[in-house]
Amino acid sequence: MSGLAQRYEALLARLRETALLQSCGSVLGWDEQTYLPPGGVAHRSEQLALLAGRTHAEATDPGLGDLLAELELDDLGDGDGAMAVNVRNARREFDRATRLPRRLVEELSRVTTLSQQAWVSARREQDFASFLPWLQQVVALKREEADAVGFADGGEPYDALLDEYEPGATSAWVDAVFAPLRAETVSLLEAIRGSRVQPEREILVREYPVDAQRTVGMRAAAMIGFCFDEGRLDVAAHPFCSGFGPGDCRLTTRYDPRHFPGAFFGTMHEAGHGIYEQGLDREAYGTAMGHSCSLGIHESQSRMWENFVGRSGVFWDGFYEEVQSAFSEALADVSRERFVTAINDVRPSMIRVEADEVTYNLHIMLRFEIERQLIAGDLQPEDLPGAWNETFTRDFGITPGNDAEGCLQDIHWSAGLIGYFPTYALGNIYAAQFFDTAETAIGPLGEQFARGEFEPLKTWLTQEIHRRGRQFPADTLVKVVTGTDLTHEPLVAHLNNRFRAIYQL
Amino acid sequence: MSGLAQRYEALLARLRETALLQSCGSVLGWDEQTYLPPGGVAHRSEQLALLAGRTHAEATDPGLGDLLAELELDDLGDGDGAMAVNVRNARREFDRATRLPRRLVEELSRVTTLSQQAWVSARREQDFASFLPWLQQVVALKREEADAVGFADGGEPYDALLDEYEPGATSAWVDAVFAPLRAETVSLLEAIRGSRVQPEREILVREYPVDAQRTVGMRAAAMIGFCFDEGRLDVAAHPFCSGFGPGDCRLTTRYDPRHFPGAFFGTMHEAGHGIYEQGLDREAYGTAMGHSCSLGIHESQSRMWENFVGRSGVFWDGFYEEVQSAFSEALADVSRERFVTAINDVRPSMIRVEADEVTYNLHIMLRFEIERQLIAGDLQPEDLPGAWNETFTRDFGITPGNDAEGCLQDIHWSAGLIGYFPTYALGNIYAAQFFDTAETAIGPLGEQFARGEFEPLKTWLTQEIHRRGRQFPADTLVKVVTGTDLTHEPLVAHLNNRFRAIYQL
Repeated sequence: MSGLAQRYEALLARLRETALLQSCGSVLGWDEQTYLPPGGVAHRSEQLALLAGRTHAEATDPGLGDLLAELELDDLGDGDGAMAVNVRNARREFDRATRLPRRLVEELSRVTTLSQQAWVSARREQDFASFLPWLQQVVALKREEADAVGFADGGEPYDALLDEYEPGATSAWVDAVFAPLRAETVSLLEAIRGSRVQPEREILVREYPVDAQRTVGMRAAAMIGFCFDEGRLDVAAHPFCSGFGPGDCRLTTRYDPRHFPGAFFGTMHEAGHGIYEQGLDREAYGTAMGHSCSLGIHESQSRMWENFVGRSGVFWDGFYEEVQSAFSEALADVSRERFVTAINDVRPSMIRVEADEVTYNLHIMLRFEIERQLIAGDLQPEDLPGAWNETFTRDFGITPGNDAEGCLQDIHWSAGLIGYFPTYALGNIYAAQFFDTAETAIGPLGEQFARGEFEPLKTWLTQEIHRRGRQFPADTLVKVVTGTDLTHEPLVAHLNNRFRAIYQL
Repeated sequence: MSGLAQRYEALLARLRETALLQSCGSVLGWDEQTYLPPGGVAHRSEQLALLAGRTHAEATDPGLGDLLAELELDDLGDGDGAMAVNVRNARREFDRATRLPRRLVEELSRVTTLSQQAWVSARREQDFASFLPWLQQVVALKREEADAVGFADGGEPYDALLDEYEPGATSAWVDAVFAPLRAETVSLLEAIRGSRVQPEREILVREYPVDAQRTVGMRAAAMIGFCFDEGRLDVAAHPFCSGFGPGDCRLTTRYDPRHFPGAFFGTMHEAGHGIYEQGLDREAYGTAMGHSCSLGIHESQSRMWENFVGRSGVFWDGFYEEVQSAFSEALADVSRERFVTAINDVRPSMIRVEADEVTYNLHIMLRFEIERQLIAGDLQPEDLPGAWNETFTRDFGITPGNDAEGCLQDIHWSAGLIGYFPTYALGNIYAAQFFDTAETAIGPLGEQFARGEFEPLKTWLTQEIHRRGRQFPADTLVKVVTGTDLTHEPLVAHLNNRFRAIYQL
């Protein structure tokens, strides 16, 4: 090919087309979780395996490798410029993909589609035994994937999986980040345990009609900036957000007519993901510059809107009246103050997605510990329930009554998402750093929230984070945006500020 | 390749994979009509164009041509056996596909996705002008398609389009089939016009709450044999049925809270299509033997369940009580007899999908006449509203008040489905012949319906029609199943029997 411009254009065309094909799989994956009739699972698994195989074939096409090799000899300009970033990321993805045999990619797709459906039944029936054969297959395939991808000297197979979700992260690095956070969390929990304040959790488990929950959830999502002209909210067994591409981002949640926070904060959380997806540069669709940075950064957005915003007292200054009238029976006698205290109730509990902000990270550390053992081969899938319950009791002082509230609670392992969990706690850490920086840059945020103004924060996040795509790895992005290296301290400070106030410590 | 068995297996593998890829497009097409947010249309059109292009590339792969040429030299056994049928149909489809340039296929997909969305707005706003540029593009592309596909000596370009939906049919043949049906219809309408019986149409435009309509529609669909474990019912602007593959068939309908028959008979109709899809041989998925015969035969199934069954008095013998209690306000004072008469009200009306059985075929003949002129170039898209209203007034004696109840009422032209309409009236003709044969073979059907027994008819249709796939062209299938050539007479007899009784003629 004659010139750099043509070569680069050819690369972009390939990347866009592969992204487009992959996004067809996203539609089928979303439908699988939302509307697929039970009898359609086998056919869906074949469809998804076909698309995964085709996508992989394109992502590993030798012509793409040749094109990248040529481009790498070119002068791509500024290393942080779009051209250099897109070529560098395309190389990273090409190298990772070519290490995986197509058979493995198709098999992973096929098995995880069926396995997710098996998980849905197993969780509903509290029947780990029926899920075990699937878990064994998934773990075996993910171990094979880890071997194929490889990892740095001194690392471990789990690093190869983690790197897919949080590029550049290693188990040892995560360990180092988590250790001080665990110590601080345990100490804060200790203090809370000694408080005389008793949040009225009972307030939140009254009758909350599903229709009103849906209306209120959508209202909040729209209020913080999720655009429903370019998205939807549907129901799924395990809430998620899937960005299909420019102009189409799907959120899901699940409703319990006797539990307010599950769907509400779930919707705020997924809307946070959705705002990130909607904030990406659509002109750069299909390239690194138009792609979210990492799952940890993604999670920083969802957790920020869910917790830093959604569970703050100031948020409810502006919104409580509306929610109170939507649930006039349940909340008739409840003041805003009692409500805010209730949604910030801290106590050890079984279910991660419903956990309070303080104990949440312990749920993640437990999963990180266990899935690392599964991939290392130090824990066998059949021993999972025992290991889970033992570790859970050690960390939380309570023991799951069954596997549905124990090791079967999350969809991730059934979906092959091993190496994904640590990004949740990293997201909390990133969120705190970003939020502090935003406060300095455009605050006081609290006053804005109390007036129902969320546009300044959303715009700031879009400029500082969303529009940067994958320009930088996550840890560099944190430094570029906040001016400091990654540190757990802002998160610990946030938790201490919020909960020492609520618990009058 | 060494032996016939290997060659045939290689063909089947190719056909199955192409069908699987195409079925991914079906999922995206369904989502486009049901849940797509407005902002997602552009991206969806790119996704669908990509899948259409990829599918076309596979369907025209020279390797497939070589394989077919080799197989055609083999002894494929009985000409009606699966091997001969599958090879013959694969050849037919390969030849048709190779005549179409990939650019045209992708362009048609892209334009019709956008055009359907433009149609939805134009119909809602009664604004033909906003739809005209899209119609012009679609007609130009379809004329290009017709030229590329070609047609037999003495035929016309429209034949090339018709042949896609009703293999083997030509305009001249359709003309010959429609002419006597028109004459008999006009004569029956004349007689009805002179009757003193006045069905109480007003009964059907009372308050029919949407939730109850949905429940009753799903109940009826399940009762006649549509399996909801392998399918769903959702809402769309224009009702349709889409079979994604084994175990997954999606129906759609639309609800008007002040009109009972629209959604109810629409659901029965789509369920009839769905029962056909669910009755296909799933082992033969991807091949001609596992594919519906033609759109006319498809329509014979939907119209049979909708009208021959659903609008019969005996059907309501068993079902009316349940419907009456579901709509206790609207139907409190309405006897079964008055209800059955009302749902069989015959009168010229604007909307095809809500037309009675007698005038329905005139709606089709009008569309056939107009779209044939559009493809011949004898009618320009900008002149459509005038031509529509003039022809409509000629045939029905009434004139549409706006284009939404005139030329904008159907989705088909926006979706590029030109040549499709005639299959609807052919379906009515086939349905009558099949129904007579079923009556002889497994009747009396009326007594079964009155007892709520639909399994015998469904089983008979599955054996005689669904399981035969594309073993025969539609006209041959009619002869094989019924023992006689295609004739409009059973349909005319059915209409005369039913409506002369209702109108006491």
